[in-house]
Parts: sequence; structure tokens; C-alpha cells
Amino acid sequence: MSLLVVGSMAFDSIKSPFGAVEKVIGGSATYFSLAASYFAPVRLVSVVGKDFPAGVIDMLAARSIDTSGLRIAEGETFRWKGYYEYDLNTAHTLETELNVFKDFAPVLPDSFRDSPYVFLGNIDPRLQMDILRQVRKPRLVALDTMNYWIGNSPGPLREVIGKVDIVVFNEGEIREISGEYNLVKAARVVMGWGPGRVVIKRGEYGVLHISDGTMFAAPAYPLETIFDPTGAGDSFAGGFMGYLASRAGTELSDMDYRLATMYGSAIASFTVEAFSTERLQGLSNGDITERVESFRALTEFQV
Amino acid sequence: MSLLVVGSMAFDSIKSPFGAVEKVIGGSATYFSLAASYFAPVRLVSVVGKDFPAGVIDMLAARSIDTSGLRIAEGETFRWKGYYEYDLNTAHTLETELNVFKDFAPVLPDSFRDSPYVFLGNIDPRLQMDILRQVRKPRLVALDTMNYWIGNSPGPLREVIGKVDIVVFNEGEIREISGEYNLVKAARVVMGWGPGRVVIKRGEYGVLHISDGTMFAAPAYPLETIFDPTGAGDSFAGGFMGYLASRAGTELSDMDYRLATMYGSAIASFTVEAFSTERLQGLSNGDITERVESFRALTEFQV
Repeated sequence: MSLLVVGSMAFDSIKSPFGAVEKVIGGSATYFSLAASYFAPVRLVSVVGKDFPAGVIDMLAARSIDTSGLRIAEGETFRWKGYYEYDLNTAHTLETELNVFKDFAPVLPDSFRDSPYVFLGNIDPRLQMDILRQVRKPRLVALDTMNYWIGNSPGPLREVIGKVDIVVFNEGEIREISGEYNLVKAARVVMGWGPGRVVIKRGEYGVLHISDGTMFAAPAYPLETIFDPTGAGDSFAGGFMGYLASRAGTELSDMDYRLATMYGSAIASFTVEAFSTERLQGLSNGDITERVESFRALTEFQV
Repeated sequence: MSLLVVGSMAFDSIKSPFGAVEKVIGGSATYFSLAASYFAPVRLVSVVGKDFPAGVIDMLAARSIDTSGLRIAEGETFRWKGYYEYDLNTAHTLETELNVFKDFAPVLPDSFRDSPYVFLGNIDPRLQMDILRQVRKPRLVALDTMNYWIGNSPGPLREVIGKVDIVVFNEGEIREISGEYNLVKAARVVMGWGPGRVVIKRGEYGVLHISDGTMFAAPAYPLETIFDPTGAGDSFAGGFMGYLASRAGTELSDMDYRLATMYGSAIASFTVEAFSTERLQGLSNGDITERVESFRALTEFQV
């Protein structure tokens, strides 16, 4: 069933110890949509400038991504410039130019209002709330955020978190918003505000998925070559939500959430193998299944 | 079958965000022996001063730990003073007094020379080599080390690493000794020197076990209360080697190494629940099995 995503599309300029690229395709909604499109039809809501290549939009539309919610505005596309050192867990920002993203006030096309699955990407929590009001009766809503909103808009952020089912954080974010260093306690604080599940992204250390009464830990795949970690978290979220949307019609079980976590991890492990969305565009279902199988081989044991 | 361990015994003074203790029992060989004693008979080689409590030695001997290789020397026991902040992965050393440990030149009792399983704790690599020469024909030898020896005695360390089957590192150590930041590549460099297996300890992120052709990733157990991480790595190693020693008589399979990793992780997860060796002294086999079962519940998924 359809999965709505709202978030940024961007041009990235990235340096890592393994190379450098200028003005390549990036943005959280771009990575999310591509990752999710392997599992479910995606409805994309974002904004780009007139400078954004039509070919990329065509590439998205050629997959199961409905781009009718993508506005092409007068002006330039959001740009991010950053670098990584050997510790690929930390992105260092050099420049952010919001450009057309500054005035992003997403309005859902009518045909998107019945979306059963919703991912509120990392944008102003007031806009996240506004999107939620425009969706009729979603089955499952997940939210991503970042330190900037935790520090600058704690009230609106707490309010929208109270309305969603799942929050996706990295370790620093959940510690900051909860005031608890210990991740189990931090997750409990956040679940006290409403969400039934918290997904904590730990970069090269994988993911910790906590809900009331169960915990699931997934490692990241120990790759030999990680070219560019940009978009790994968004790809994870896309694979995670995409898998859940693909299970529509059945009641979601704990195992579904575990598998969603593994499919998300598999997709993220491909994303980092190349710069930009390069690796993410040409996967086969066989590639993904094989990677999930490698994860099983990586973690399984029998007492 | 018997498991020989050579390493330090100490008095620790520790501060963590959850309390402080003065002059409690510590030392790598102490944690290792206690942890391993749940699985196999242990032969302990270490040195303490006259100030070391006889009651503690009795407590060790009352378990399956042969203390006939423990020398009680004139002078004071090794002391370590340190603290942890919220990031429990990093120990900050305030003071180290080697005392009787400075002149530690371990001589194996004759009855220890046939030990089939050997753990060379973190001591001068020249002493590690000396111990190896005193053991007749060990089946399986593992080695631990630390940044100090990597920086100050790289030659002797490389030499002894060439003689062992398994090396246990933390992430910083294997990166430093191999000159490779990527852990998979780093492990391959070390395996090129001789050992067939590398175990990489990642603190709260668990353990990565790499051998030629297979990888196994185990998370750390996400505990709500971690009082004191001191000894977690040594307890892990004790449980890991103890489990392997308990499998003697059968050819060790990949699954044995996986289970050894999980039993080590289970024991380590108990160690950190209290200061010093407190929690480690009173476990039942049921406690340990239950914790390994919790790890299974934490990581399992079915495609």
C-alpha cells in the first residue's frame, strides 16, 4: 500500500577519505523514496528549484514513485556541502543553502490524502504537524528529526511526536530530547509521550529497535568499502517503512518490525557503497534478499 | 579441559556516574578467571602483594580456579585508579601503581605446562612469549594486548601474535596495530601475521568476530543500569575461552565460536551491573543460560 514521504531533495557536495563529488543528487526524501520503492508505491512530497535535472525526476517516476507532490519552484535547489573523516559516523557540514526549501510549505495533492503509511522526514515540526492534519486516517506514521529542531522547537516537536507511532533517532538525538544518556531509559521517556516504538540509528554499529516489551538489535553490515555514508539513515528509513507498507493487509507482528529493520539495514548497506544515490538506483530484489541473508549469517546462533 | 590465564590482579578505585568505590578487587586475570570458572577449570598465573586479602584467594580457589600459580610477593598489589563519564566506553586513568606487578616474570608451575587452552592477558609481549615457551603443546592460544604495547613494543608484540590462534582487541587497538581504519581490512592484516581469528570488542556496541571466511556480530545487551564497565572485556574473554575449553573433545566448529562469543557477552553483561567482581561471583548457570536466551530474543529474525 502507498507510502507518503515528505522531506528534502538536494544537491550534495561531499568529500570522504575515498573521494569527492560535486553537486550530486541528495536529500532525505530522495534516498527514502528510492529505498522504499523496492517494496511499495511511494508518494513523494518535496520541493526543488528550476535547476533540478528533469532526468532525475523521470528516473524516480520510472520507479513506483508518484512525483505529483513534487513542486518545482522558482529559484535554486537546496544545497548541502560537507565532508567525512575516517569516522564515517560523523558528517561535518561546511555549507547549507536552503534556497527553495526555505519556503517549503507542503500541500498534499488530493490523491495523497488517503495515504495509509506516512513518513515525516526531518523538517520543521510545525510542517510535520501540518502534513499530519492533511492526511485522512493513516495507519502508521513515522517521524524523523534532528538536533536543530530538538534545540530550537522543542514544544512543536514534542507535540507532533505525541501523534506518531514510530520515531527514528540517532543516538545523540534521543539522548538530547529525552535527557537520558542510557538508550533504554531514553526510549522509555519518548514512548511515554505517545509513540509505541523508537528506532535508534547507530551508524556503523547498526540499529536498536525498542518497543514496549521487546528490543531488537541489528548490526550494520561490516563492509570493506564505505565510500559515502550520506543518505544511509534515510535509506534505512525507506527500506524499513517500505517493508511495513508491503505487509499491508496483515496485522503487523513483532517479526514484521524485525524484518523491516533488516530490510532497512540491507538497503542502507548498499547506499554507502557508492557516492550519492548511485548504488541505490540499480538494485535487484535478488541483491536485497541476498544481503538480508548475509545479515542472518552474520548474526545467527543456536544454543 | 584446563584453561591457563596469565595476567594482572589489582586493587581498583573507580568512579562512575553511578557511584564510587575505593580499593576493590580488580585486575584482568581476576575477571577472566571468575568468568571462565563457570565453564572450565582455570589455572591462574599472577602476582599480588602481601596486602592482598587471603579471603579473595580462598574465594577463587573455592571455585574451579587453581591458584597454585599465584605468587604472593613482598610489597604492595598493583593499583589502578580511574573514572568513567556517561560514555562508559572510555576509561580515564588517574593513577597506575604497578608495585609488585613491575617485576612480574611468570614461571608456570610444572602442573600447568600441559594446559591445552591458554589466554595470554594484557602484559609485556616478551612475557607473553616466555609463557608460550613454557607451555608444552597448547591446542588453542588467545592473546589480549593494549595500546601501550602496540606503541612501545611493536616488534615483540608482532612476534607473539604470530604464534597465537586468536587475538582480542578493542577497535582502537586493531586500528592502531594494523594501520587500517576499516575493521574488516584491519582483521585481514592481523590474520596475515598468523592468527586465524580476530575478536574486536566494541564496548556497548558488542563484539565483531572475524575469521577467514566468516564474520559474526553480537550486540552488547542493552541494559538499563550499567554501574561499572571495568572488567567487561576481561569477563568477555573469560566466558569466551571458558566456553571453548568446555567443548574440548569435539572439533571446534564455527557455531562453537559463535556460542563462545555469546557466552562471553552474557558474562560481560553481568559484570557491568555492579562494581568490581560483585555480580560475577554469585551467578548461577541458570542466570547465564537465561541471559544467552535474552540475547537470542534480541537478535533473531526469520526471513
